[in-house]
Order: sequence, then structure tokens, then C-alpha cells
Amino acid sequence: MSRLDSFIRRLEAQRACLDRVAALIDRLDGIVLELGLGNGRTYDHLRELFPSRDIYVFERRVAAHPDCVPPGDRLLLGDLRETLPGVRSWLINRVALAHLDVGTGDVAANRALALELVPLVAPLLREGAVLASDQLMDCPEFTPLPLPDGVTEGRYHLYRRQ
Amino acid sequence: MSRLDSFIRRLEAQRACLDRVAALIDRLDGIVLELGLGNGRTYDHLRELFPSRDIYVFERRVAAHPDCVPPGDRLLLGDLRETLPGVRSWLINRVALAHLDVGTGDVAANRALALELVPLVAPLLREGAVLASDQLMDCPEFTPLPLPDGVTEGRYHLYRRQ
Repeated sequence: MSRLDSFIRRLEAQRACLDRVAALIDRLDGIVLELGLGNGRTYDHLRELFPSRDIYVFERRVAAHPDCVPPGDRLLLGDLRETLPGVRSWLINRVALAHLDVGTGDVAANRALALELVPLVAPLLREGAVLASDQLMDCPEFTPLPLPDGVTEGRYHLYRRQ
Repeated sequence: MSRLDSFIRRLEAQRACLDRVAALIDRLDGIVLELGLGNGRTYDHLRELFPSRDIYVFERRVAAHPDCVPPGDRLLLGDLRETLPGVRSWLINRVALAHLDVGTGDVAANRALALELVPLVAPLLREGAVLASDQLMDCPEFTPLPLPDGVTEGRYHLYRRQ
């Protein structure tokens, strides 16, 4: 499989997971969090999927396409390990979906970051909320959900907040 | 359609066209040219499709994944408008496939560049060779070929050198 094949599969998996999540939280009010903006493509997809929800975007430094930069009052700049604790008091139990896309080529660093983020993300999610993540995010509060057809196990991760 | 949808369609179209091209030149000996390396994903795909062909890569400045950087003697650094004339004497009529992927967000600049490149690329292609391009490359020497199923007209372009 070429890098082109692999990249297409990863994007298709990501989209299939986000589309699945939209159905999963259809009847659950709440905010959407985009943790990692990147080029803004998934943020644009989330905007389409959730036109009537507030979407808050967390990013260290914005490098997205100009059309995909969120409004200033929906953008939280900085390291997730600092910005997530800062919003805890007003986002606690108010989030219906958190999408985490922070992976780099460094598998060990990704794993370490995910372990740090789990306890920062979990309290923000309301009961029944969904976490979609490119990283494994095991913790007692999260029940793994099955992936959409065609998405290889481990390529993406979906969890339901208990 | 979100930017994520649009990006996936573009990559799928590109892959479908390259896979189609591999069948089209199956019985035609010749060199492969990758005009524009970018992140190296399509170069990696071309390497898989054409393991026994020489692939020459033209790029202004290499910014590809380290696994996708061609060997030094297969890499021609510089502006295509200068490097293509420089190889004309030894590549003339020796190329079976040229893949051009140079588009940016600037449609007018893309069109102008394509017009400059057509007369530089055409003489390198042997009779029956294929040009796959993200840009319209109309010229008398090129016969447009039908696109693979599912690829929207205009999203990619395939030509046969007469």
C-alpha cells in the first residue's frame, strides 16, 4: 500500500467516524470541541455536520486555510494541557462531542500526550457524549464504540462517556 | 460538500487516474516523470505502480517525507521552466508517462504555468505516451482521454501523445 493509499484510507476513516458520531449524538444537546485544528478540513466537516451547535476549537497555533479559521470567540489558543484545564469550570458536563486529532509521526509521544489529555477531556463530556480520537484514550469513564464498516481497528477510536 | 469531502475526492480522483494510466502504458517502454514532488505521496504511488521503470522527479525544493525523497541521480531541482529545457536533449521521445501536479489555490497562475509547460513537456513524450495532469494541458499533440468512472470532469486530465 502506497502512502497515497494509506493517506486516503486515513481520511476516509476519519470522515466515516465523524459521520457516525453525528448520528450517535443526534438527540444529545451540547457543545462540540475540535481539539487540534490543523488545516481546518475536519473543522469544516464538523461545521457542516453540526450547523446549529457551538463548536470550540483548540489549537496551539493557527495554520488553517483562511476559510476554516473559527471566529475569535470560538478559538482557544495554546497547549491543550493548559487550555483544557482553563475551560473546565464553564465547559464541565456541557460537551456532546469532542474530536481529538493530534497525532504526529512520533507514536510514543502521541501515546504520552493522549494519557495526559484523557483526564482533562473526560470531565467536560456530558453523560452519553462521544469522544472521537486518532489516539487510544482508554479510561474507566469511556466505553469503546464499534467503528463504522470499512474502518480498520485501531485507525480511529470512538468512545461513549458513561 | 466540506473541505474534507472535497480533499478526499481529489485524492481518490488522482489515484484512480494514476492507476488507469498504469494500464494504458503497460506495453509502452519508457521513463516516468513526476513533475512536482510535494509531500511525495504520489511519487510513492508511482514507485509501486512502476517498480521496473526509471522515475525522474522534478521539484523546486524538496519538502517530502524522508521515505519519499528520490535518489539524488533521479532528482532535478529547480523551476520546471528551467529544468525541463535542460533535460530535453537526453529525454526527448523517451518518456512513457509524465505526471504533472503543480496546482495551487491561484487558478490564473496555474493556467499560465500550464501554458508555459505544455511545449516543454510534449517533446519528451514518445508516441502513445500519457500525460496525467491536475491542469488543463490542451495542445495539438495531445488527445484527451476519458477519465475513470467516478472522476468528475475537469478534476484531473489525461492525454495521449499522438
